[in-house]
Amino acid sequence: MKETGTVKAVSDSTVRRLSAYYRRLSEMEEEGIEIASSKELATRNGVTPAQVRKDFSLFGKFGRRGQGYTVKDLKEAIAKILGVGRGWNVALVGLGKVGAALFHYKEFRKQGFNIAAVFDNDPAKQGGHIGDAEIYAPERLKEVVQEKGIGIGIVSVPGEAAQAAVDALVMAGVRAILSFPMRRVVVPEGIHLRYVNMAVEMEGLSFLLANPGSKRHRSSPEGVR
Amino acid sequence: MKETGTVKAVSDSTVRRLSAYYRRLSEMEEEGIEIASSKELATRNGVTPAQVRKDFSLFGKFGRRGQGYTVKDLKEAIAKILGVGRGWNVALVGLGKVGAALFHYKEFRKQGFNIAAVFDNDPAKQGGHIGDAEIYAPERLKEVVQEKGIGIGIVSVPGEAAQAAVDALVMAGVRAILSFPMRRVVVPEGIHLRYVNMAVEMEGLSFLLANPGSKRHRSSPEGVR
Repeated sequence: MKETGTVKAVSDSTVRRLSAYYRRLSEMEEEGIEIASSKELATRNGVTPAQVRKDFSLFGKFGRRGQGYTVKDLKEAIAKILGVGRGWNVALVGLGKVGAALFHYKEFRKQGFNIAAVFDNDPAKQGGHIGDAEIYAPERLKEVVQEKGIGIGIVSVPGEAAQAAVDALVMAGVRAILSFPMRRVVVPEGIHLRYVNMAVEMEGLSFLLANPGSKRHRSSPEGVR
Repeated sequence: MKETGTVKAVSDSTVRRLSAYYRRLSEMEEEGIEIASSKELATRNGVTPAQVRKDFSLFGKFGRRGQGYTVKDLKEAIAKILGVGRGWNVALVGLGKVGAALFHYKEFRKQGFNIAAVFDNDPAKQGGHIGDAEIYAPERLKEVVQEKGIGIGIVSVPGEAAQAAVDALVMAGVRAILSFPMRRVVVPEGIHLRYVNMAVEMEGLSFLLANPGSKRHRSSPEGVR
């Protein structure tokens, strides 16, 4: 397998499809499948075989013409491109019910996202632990982020505190943020920001139920449409 | 304000923008703003004023030319289109840590999504309560869904149990499902399915950190790009 090493101007939808291939390949590995054709990968991901080949061509040469892809190698190559399994240290800001559930969310750890420090403005929580992570006062963000080499921040504070939490993470040197509050936040150029918004997905469903004539929506777990 | 009453072939991105307008209008209402121009709505949502007017035109006539929109009326009209605040009864299948956090997630209740029944295959939990919702054995899904008029199901079971949980919800008469496991599931024609996948968003961030030359991603909490 050969990789080009340079990756540029890759669209968000391509990255989502890579996440999808990665998951489907993991499932195939569990099922004991060793070789996958682009046709099978396409079927499992709900895309065309041409799309599969086009996506992989962006990142170099995978597999050999007419012989399919080796599931294990392809999975590892995509993991490397996605940067999963590298062991990112993550800061979790806001330890309410949602924050606590995120801390225990197994899929994060499984993909190498390690919540190494937790921040909450409740003095009663500060100095305590959740799992093996210490809970700090938000004032200590910069110091702890630098000490622990934290690269990604997760924000799970109430909406009105979201921008302040994001600003504090950016000031501390964090360059990628996953935000759970409904509130729109702004980040400086060069900082990566994504949202997870469960209520919006519920509203999408209630829209479809409330408007039976409207278009049916179908997607993959990775948001590939 | 006049509404057409019929809504057809509305794209998923339009529905996401409606969710975004709805949130920004709620924030403006909290800030005491009574009248909003399409320019202000556009700025707050990161879209063009033309897009705002086009989106609203799909659903009838809001506001009067040159006078802007009445924040309260527009917010209520969009809520009605989205079907929020109607009081949907929801079944939650799977009461692990993620399920419990979803049960307590305030934004669901605030928008009228009421988790009226919880299902878990752990006999120790069955017959008990979380909040004021009873915990049932999955075998009772059909009976309880019909008794409580449940229209939406949330699936938060391990991946390998996802398809069975979805099948049971569909068999019970639920027509809209929000799925949290990573596993891709299939539903029959006419059933609405959405996924929430936090690990995929994290992978999107790690991709951007691992590939500094790649395109910067920016979105809104509603997934509007």
